[in-house]
Amino acid sequence: MWILRLNMSDLSYRLEEVPAKYQHLGGRGLTSTIVHDEVPPLCHPLGPNNKLVFAPGIVTGTVAPTSARVSVGAKSPLTGGIKESNAGTSWAQHVANMQIKAIVVEGQAKGYHLAHLTWDAKAGKPKVEFMPANEYAGKDLYEIFPKLYAKFGNKVSIAGTGNAGEFGYGNSGVVFNDMAGRPSRYSGRGGMGAVMASRGLKFIVADPAGAPGVVLKDKALFDEGRKKLIDALRAHDITKPKGGLNTYGTAVLINILNEAGGLPTRNFSSGRFEGAAKIAGEAIFEGNKQRLGKELYNHACSPGCIIQCSNTWHKPDGTEHVSCVEYESDWSLGANCGIDSLDDIAELVRLCNAYGLDTIETGTTLAVAMEAGVIKFGDGKGAINLVHEMGKGTPMGRLLGGGTAFAGKAFGLTRVPTVKGQSMPAYEPRAIKGIGITYATTTMGADHTAGYTIAPEILGVSGKVDPLSPEGKAALSRAFQATTAFIDSTGHCLFIAFAILDIASGFEGMMEECNGVLGTNWKSEDAAKLGAEILKIERAFNEAAGIGKEADRMPEFMKYEPLPPHNVVWDVPDSALDSVFGEM
Amino acid sequence: MWILRLNMSDLSYRLEEVPAKYQHLGGRGLTSTIVHDEVPPLCHPLGPNNKLVFAPGIVTGTVAPTSARVSVGAKSPLTGGIKESNAGTSWAQHVANMQIKAIVVEGQAKGYHLAHLTWDAKAGKPKVEFMPANEYAGKDLYEIFPKLYAKFGNKVSIAGTGNAGEFGYGNSGVVFNDMAGRPSRYSGRGGMGAVMASRGLKFIVADPAGAPGVVLKDKALFDEGRKKLIDALRAHDITKPKGGLNTYGTAVLINILNEAGGLPTRNFSSGRFEGAAKIAGEAIFEGNKQRLGKELYNHACSPGCIIQCSNTWHKPDGTEHVSCVEYESDWSLGANCGIDSLDDIAELVRLCNAYGLDTIETGTTLAVAMEAGVIKFGDGKGAINLVHEMGKGTPMGRLLGGGTAFAGKAFGLTRVPTVKGQSMPAYEPRAIKGIGITYATTTMGADHTAGYTIAPEILGVSGKVDPLSPEGKAALSRAFQATTAFIDSTGHCLFIAFAILDIASGFEGMMEECNGVLGTNWKSEDAAKLGAEILKIERAFNEAAGIGKEADRMPEFMKYEPLPPHNVVWDVPDSALDSVFGEM
Repeated sequence: MWILRLNMSDLSYRLEEVPAKYQHLGGRGLTSTIVHDEVPPLCHPLGPNNKLVFAPGIVTGTVAPTSARVSVGAKSPLTGGIKESNAGTSWAQHVANMQIKAIVVEGQAKGYHLAHLTWDAKAGKPKVEFMPANEYAGKDLYEIFPKLYAKFGNKVSIAGTGNAGEFGYGNSGVVFNDMAGRPSRYSGRGGMGAVMASRGLKFIVADPAGAPGVVLKDKALFDEGRKKLIDALRAHDITKPKGGLNTYGTAVLINILNEAGGLPTRNFSSGRFEGAAKIAGEAIFEGNKQRLGKELYNHACSPGCIIQCSNTWHKPDGTEHVSCVEYESDWSLGANCGIDSLDDIAELVRLCNAYGLDTIETGTTLAVAMEAGVIKFGDGKGAINLVHEMGKGTPMGRLLGGGTAFAGKAFGLTRVPTVKGQSMPAYEPRAIKGIGITYATTTMGADHTAGYTIAPEILGVSGKVDPLSPEGKAALSRAFQATTAFIDSTGHCLFIAFAILDIASGFEGMMEECNGVLGTNWKSEDAAKLGAEILKIERAFNEAAGIGKEADRMPEFMKYEPLPPHNVVWDVPDSALDSVFGEM
Repeated sequence: MWILRLNMSDLSYRLEEVPAKYQHLGGRGLTSTIVHDEVPPLCHPLGPNNKLVFAPGIVTGTVAPTSARVSVGAKSPLTGGIKESNAGTSWAQHVANMQIKAIVVEGQAKGYHLAHLTWDAKAGKPKVEFMPANEYAGKDLYEIFPKLYAKFGNKVSIAGTGNAGEFGYGNSGVVFNDMAGRPSRYSGRGGMGAVMASRGLKFIVADPAGAPGVVLKDKALFDEGRKKLIDALRAHDITKPKGGLNTYGTAVLINILNEAGGLPTRNFSSGRFEGAAKIAGEAIFEGNKQRLGKELYNHACSPGCIIQCSNTWHKPDGTEHVSCVEYESDWSLGANCGIDSLDDIAELVRLCNAYGLDTIETGTTLAVAMEAGVIKFGDGKGAINLVHEMGKGTPMGRLLGGGTAFAGKAFGLTRVPTVKGQSMPAYEPRAIKGIGITYATTTMGADHTAGYTIAPEILGVSGKVDPLSPEGKAALSRAFQATTAFIDSTGHCLFIAFAILDIASGFEGMMEECNGVLGTNWKSEDAAKLGAEILKIERAFNEAAGIGKEADRMPEFMKYEPLPPHNVVWDVPDSALDSVFGEM
């Protein structure tokens, strides 16, 4: 296994043996540790001393189910702190199968380049060729991806950055291909696209031909674990074939959150959207059925996924409009903007993919612009125009491209739903306190995936607790955050958590897969401990970057502005927030 | 003496007796203490819980020389920390003469209002009348001020906010009248204009008629001190009539700093500007002489000033263009933008006054826009157009109105000369280390007035030290910062420091003036102790706002980008920076 370093300053690369301390790390655990160890916490995120780190998960590249995740880490231009943002894509498997544990992108090139990553069978190791890539700058990713496939063959996979990254936006993701070669799988959050572009790196094209694959230390144990995990995923209502996610996609949550009064609407001014049913997962399923004349179940974003939650929205004539309209995108570009047209939402998602924007941050930023009166709530066509401005880098586009906190400042607003500079996702913290504690305290800035307490608070997974009560929620968020940091390191999609939190043998299976790969002897109860170690490393980086507990706070307006329909404010005491890390 | 509270939420006011703990405070000491005591450190600067505090200095309103200063304090929308920004204006004296020690503006009104502050002779106390002021919103302050004088009489004085404040810009000052009724004296730094506008307060018009004046506890002592201070001011080369400041204005520094290689040029890419002589104080003096046919010495910004450093620039036809072209404005809008036309610089200053912008932050922001390629360095007409955009609130204007750090982020730049979100003024810290330590460590964000080590490093005032050496500079900055915090509390203009640091009896005189007003028994050596107490209070606020020692750092590019002509980088160790407050 290697650490691959790309030095953009002189367009060279180096393969290093994996140091002992990194041997058992993968995914988030590895990106965060490398960022912590190598990036000066006070460096400028777009300057010469930041580094961009890619790391497939521990089991990524094996036949472990739903495990084609790659973590992308750096100091974030959005939050100023450490960032890990992961995506599901064949690229993750290709890199892992070349026995690369991490790619560290260092230095800064003049102009844009791409790195062509192949397996050198003769030398028995990966090989990198740098090529000029200025021709791909300033262009729609839906145009560029086919050109890359034409040039490098349709078996390759792609990591890249779009216009948003080139402009240095805080809202700029790293894009990866999905299984159909769409530029649609994103490490969206935190401006990783800008960090990539500021290195002068436009794409990493990975060709898996001849790659030897991941070595298993204990194949029998791995196979045993894999079987347990597969069984759990196939058994649980949320993750099973033709279950909730496979049928309605993640947007199945729209109606559920709306019912709970926790669907942030019109820039977090209500927890309920009168147009919810029109944009819900059920409406996507029914809309497709109508336009295609048949039922369409969802597909996998990456090879080896059992859950298969990625939908495709179709135009009235039955041709594809975009894949995929995730819950978060559907909400941010829909309910949160007061937009109830799936066609408009789909176009907005498509444009985010085309320009390299994070859909969550884009929707929350558009809502802030609506609040400021730039366009009206519900104006889908106006929103589409604004996203084009972002993609073109006009003054208005740059103002919005900086992200929600940035735009809120530009417009002099106080109702700006962000923590540590990153916008809140699709769960209203005033109505669902546990997720609010996660937003406030995670090292990542407001992030639902960092500790998804929605499972017990709303979905009845892993128990059932009252979403409106702050009681016990600090401990709940802490437990979820720690376990999540571990799962994000394994390379599995976080959605396996639905199954393994309810089915203990599934959790065991996940641990056995890891043990099978690494030769470790981890038990289920070790997951949270291992995760907590990762969080502590991230926290240490943030503190050295000047982001301490004072940043673990909700935006002030949530404390004095009651949220309909429950008319609740944010009432979790600061001491509870401080206890999340204080008692870790 | 009273604390006057303006409650904008219900347009009421309240006069409170001054609490014992505030009795001996004034100016910065009082604004910072009230902000510390009453403003939640994590509140939104433009939200309902921030407060705007005005406080004349301890001796303001008396006949103490050069003492018509008012401090304006709040949580800053630019830095996120505590802010004190002071100005010289008759308004300070009028308020002091009504025996008001501080005005605390609280709550938020709908729409804009003005507060008409008069002396109620019958009741023997100040009186406030609120009036609608929406008619003044969105307008040039040069148009509005004459209307206010027409309405309230030409004896009144005015505090207000312009378009920049209404837009909520981080770059928005609080404007005051000068002696000719121009809207030209500014508490410019840190977005105090936006804090005022966000309260719904557009102007405070003060009518001094009948006001009883400041009570002196010991008139003889006061008079004695006053005489000593006057003698010192009249004796020192920098402050005496027809001395450096009275002849050439503060812009006398242009040639001096250029010669020292410390005049930041073209967005801090050089320490020397080839056009320096064309924009220097000497050029202003000669230009006026040519256009007026006679020598013009400078005037006072406010009554009772001996130094009289405010210039006026005239058009080719001899009519007034603008007053005043301060060194900082001349530099920021001139050298730092590569602009060498005094007519263009004067127009830029005029526009800043008209729109309510800080000239320093505006020039450094324009330079960042030039660096980003929006317009070219040296393009005066282009710069004028951009300031109009700021004044009109276009998308480009809002992007620039957020300030230099904000614009730098919008353009994805790394060469952004700011600390704690506030732009550096006219002294290159790589070439003059002591001032860099002040920039890095002051509670205010980069600010030369917070600890003006330029005095010994460049001007040979209070000793002479090598500007390029970091040796002993932390102690030097600490001493200057502490003494400055006290002088900013007395109500004297900081320029008295030139005289009193060299002439010990002048320093004694300043202390005796204060003792004469307050009945205290302070000695010269108490000044730094009293100042240090203020700094500690400010520091405590900032730490609670999440601004700790990690924020006491210079921008990273200064560490790796050598500055011509000396080709020096920022090489002051972090430990020296930490020692400024660590050893206070």
